[in-house]
Amino acid sequence: MMLSDGFIFHGFQGSNDGTLNETHRIIVSSTKSVEEHTLEAIVLFNQGADKVEIKGTGFEVNKAVDIYNSIVDRLGKGVELEGVETGSEVKDKRRLSFILIKLRRVY
Amino acid sequence: MMLSDGFIFHGFQGSNDGTLNETHRIIVSSTKSVEEHTLEAIVLFNQGADKVEIKGTGFEVNKAVDIYNSIVDRLGKGVELEGVETGSEVKDKRRLSFILIKLRRVY
Repeated sequence: MMLSDGFIFHGFQGSNDGTLNETHRIIVSSTKSVEEHTLEAIVLFNQGADKVEIKGTGFEVNKAVDIYNSIVDRLGKGVELEGVETGSEVKDKRRLSFILIKLRRVY
Repeated sequence: MMLSDGFIFHGFQGSNDGTLNETHRIIVSSTKSVEEHTLEAIVLFNQGADKVEIKGTGFEVNKAVDIYNSIVDRLGKGVELEGVETGSEVKDKRRLSFILIKLRRVY
């Protein structure tokens, strides 16, 4: 998804006018590592995002929690767990469990 | 863990006097299926437990969310999500992510 000035954010649901609105959602991908997703979140916080959500579906539920722990390891008290949602959704005609971990910047 | 009268609850942390106290914790096991753990939870609720917690660690984090969805499928409005905790803990000298899903009986 092209935001502006050639910046391509994969899996973010930011606004289309290029500004970093309040909440960003990182969709955990099977092809990216925990560290890569952790970096994405930290870059977003550094660019001014107040809230970052991590969404893991199916087998990526584990990785979403790993990413959360990895972010907390690095940002410590600078980030706070706002909430965790779990449930299931239909994807490619299959019902999969998901987890949505909501983080808020504190510093 | 032997409770009383030959009742063996695997992975439950119930009281030692055999009565079903308020909260029971099901430790998600790699050797048990989602259905087996779902049955455990439903049996506990039927025996009078008010709250059941599902704890999944490491690779079982996914399964914990699957179990939660499976319980909700069967009990529908009869059970409510009280909260979800995520974090990490050290097990066999390795730090693993965990999820703790807290359910409360409504009916």
